[in-house]
Amino acid sequence: MDADRRIRLALVREKIFRHFSEGIVPFWAERGIDTEFGGYLTNFDADGRWISEDTDKYIVTQTRMIWGFSLFHQRFPQDKRYLDYATQGVDFFIDHFWDQQWGGWFWKVRRDGSLIDPGKVVYGQSFAIYALSQYYLATGDRRGLEYADRTFDLLQRYCADTARGGYYENLEPDWSLSAPGFHAGDRKSLDIHMHLLECFTTLYQASGLDVHRRRLEEVIHILLKHMVDPVIGCGLNQFDLEFRRIPPIAIRRTWNAEREGELAAGAVDTTSYGHNLELVWLLLHACDVMQIPGSTYLENIRKLVEHAMQYGIDWMNGGIYRDGPHTAPAVVRDKEWWQHTEALVGLLDAYILLSDERYLDAFENIWTFADRFFINPELGEWRTLLSEDGTPIVSGLGNPWKACYHSGRGMDECLKRLDVILEGR
Amino acid sequence: MDADRRIRLALVREKIFRHFSEGIVPFWAERGIDTEFGGYLTNFDADGRWISEDTDKYIVTQTRMIWGFSLFHQRFPQDKRYLDYATQGVDFFIDHFWDQQWGGWFWKVRRDGSLIDPGKVVYGQSFAIYALSQYYLATGDRRGLEYADRTFDLLQRYCADTARGGYYENLEPDWSLSAPGFHAGDRKSLDIHMHLLECFTTLYQASGLDVHRRRLEEVIHILLKHMVDPVIGCGLNQFDLEFRRIPPIAIRRTWNAEREGELAAGAVDTTSYGHNLELVWLLLHACDVMQIPGSTYLENIRKLVEHAMQYGIDWMNGGIYRDGPHTAPAVVRDKEWWQHTEALVGLLDAYILLSDERYLDAFENIWTFADRFFINPELGEWRTLLSEDGTPIVSGLGNPWKACYHSGRGMDECLKRLDVILEGR
Repeated sequence: MDADRRIRLALVREKIFRHFSEGIVPFWAERGIDTEFGGYLTNFDADGRWISEDTDKYIVTQTRMIWGFSLFHQRFPQDKRYLDYATQGVDFFIDHFWDQQWGGWFWKVRRDGSLIDPGKVVYGQSFAIYALSQYYLATGDRRGLEYADRTFDLLQRYCADTARGGYYENLEPDWSLSAPGFHAGDRKSLDIHMHLLECFTTLYQASGLDVHRRRLEEVIHILLKHMVDPVIGCGLNQFDLEFRRIPPIAIRRTWNAEREGELAAGAVDTTSYGHNLELVWLLLHACDVMQIPGSTYLENIRKLVEHAMQYGIDWMNGGIYRDGPHTAPAVVRDKEWWQHTEALVGLLDAYILLSDERYLDAFENIWTFADRFFINPELGEWRTLLSEDGTPIVSGLGNPWKACYHSGRGMDECLKRLDVILEGR
Repeated sequence: MDADRRIRLALVREKIFRHFSEGIVPFWAERGIDTEFGGYLTNFDADGRWISEDTDKYIVTQTRMIWGFSLFHQRFPQDKRYLDYATQGVDFFIDHFWDQQWGGWFWKVRRDGSLIDPGKVVYGQSFAIYALSQYYLATGDRRGLEYADRTFDLLQRYCADTARGGYYENLEPDWSLSAPGFHAGDRKSLDIHMHLLECFTTLYQASGLDVHRRRLEEVIHILLKHMVDPVIGCGLNQFDLEFRRIPPIAIRRTWNAEREGELAAGAVDTTSYGHNLELVWLLLHACDVMQIPGSTYLENIRKLVEHAMQYGIDWMNGGIYRDGPHTAPAVVRDKEWWQHTEALVGLLDAYILLSDERYLDAFENIWTFADRFFINPELGEWRTLLSEDGTPIVSGLGNPWKACYHSGRGMDECLKRLDVILEGR
């Protein structure tokens, strides 16, 4: 790395630190707490104004806010508010989302905590494990680890597929399998198995238990054996229960289906560049927590990154596309916030592992685009969706799927890696 | 079926009923209860005398006795002793075998209940589920179903292989995987997965819960996809964790290893005729409990039976051999009690499903041999091991692996099927 690059990266580091500590953290601390009912408010328009017509609480964003304030407390322990903000979120979550009859967590409640949708979705359960484990690590409150482990047990009891491996993903309130098709009781996905990798990593970090590590190793086995293309190396998308790849559809209770409704099936070779780079750093983080070398999955990581380098990065406008086929240019060329934050972390990790400066080129490319177009300069949170050239499509700063998770985590994880790169820390 | 066969089978039915009710049941009721410490005494010599030098209590035979007295109570409810005998066995089992620290059941205790071996073996856990579910069905004592379901949960948490499907089989006291080789943490087997099929069937029968049925369906999937030869149709033996067939070895904490110690690996194509015929009727019983047609697995069942017909039955001396290769005559030609009781049931079930009278020929062949050589005529329990021609090798009537399970269950299951065949009941 030459001196110019070092100087540029040091400036990016400072900018990201200010953006995180003076933008994202206060954005959510000042407006994310529901002081009337407890839990979190998550929906904010382009000017950071609360959207009072849309106040339902989703498991995904309530847990992402618990996760976020737990992180903020770890990073800024001198500010005592974040601990309180995390704890009140856990209180609300246990009081109103925990299913006293069947165990596990509901999908959606009203602002006051009254029940709307008691469905059991592994995506949501995985975020509960992730947030509660992080909360335990940050606070030492035993409720976090206890409920995380109870959720882990329920996944083993009701969701593990002991015939073929992996997990069933979409279940009814009583944990019976959902219907096929739009309800997707007959599908498995890279997305949800990647979030199981994510949450089992943090659960193992919190518990140190052998069985949590074993399930983490097993879900990595599933991801790398069945859910990435063995030759091309990019991530696949959806599968039948036997892990045969099938054309992806919009599935009930997902971000895409809630935006776009039930869609015709897509191409079977659809891959998400953001997921691929998120998988890179989640794999390396899991290695770190398991104290095994990051080089364990070197070839998988190299292929995942190289695919994004070839097809995902928009070298002209900057940023990263959403989706595309395995061996041709990107098709869905909008720019979405979360792919960018995850790509930034994945590229830094790939550089640390493989010492290839092209990954730093891509990192700088994406950061420059994000800094210019995604980050609201007054409010410091990320816009949701832009066109290919950066024109805003959805400028809202908070929605039922967003919260402070991708933005806050992405910035925090970048800071850790930039410190390693710049100072060998 | 001609009139001669009908008369012969009716006589066999009467003989089996007397053998069961006047032989096996009183044999164990009169000497199987440990009135000093609780639980069961299981070791008796060729004359039915208690072997006082060998009084350790194994999970396998303690649970088999709970299972047996639960059955006896169902069959002979007017005799109130059997309910007490089952209940005191459950009391002892919960008090002395339940691991308060890690959950699950110990492998072995002394006669007074003090701990010898806290190892966690799925074979043992499966018999706990089987016995406690049967005990609940027989008595309505909620403890039975509660502990069975807790054990089921522990299998899901600690033993399910969520990478490849199926279950890890040999675990340490804290439920970590045992070492490879003789400790067999790296092996899966037809034997243990068949006993999971057996126990999940009775658990589902007891609970009616969707999740127990799902796990039952999944273990059937594993057995028929990975554990029987797809062309020849006979059962395989041992596998690595990926279900690749490997040469079988004697494994710690198994009947063979305790008899014979650590042996050189056998031939990879070893199959057990007794297991194959046991699998036949356990599959059909599972269909019955799930209320799906027995013809669901028709081709598997036909192949399992035909293999035993071709290679397993000793048409000259009578009886059934122990083991042999897939496509050649039997190699291990001793006659062991349990293969005979299981074969009798499997052959009757195969006849009911497929209406092939050759299966009744084999049934009569095995019964005649058993009645003449295995069953102790004064005491009514089965000897353990005979040579090919019926000469006793081990005449003992009870050992740490035997109890009243194969003999009592086999006779009871034969009676049910003979009633169907003879009277259409």
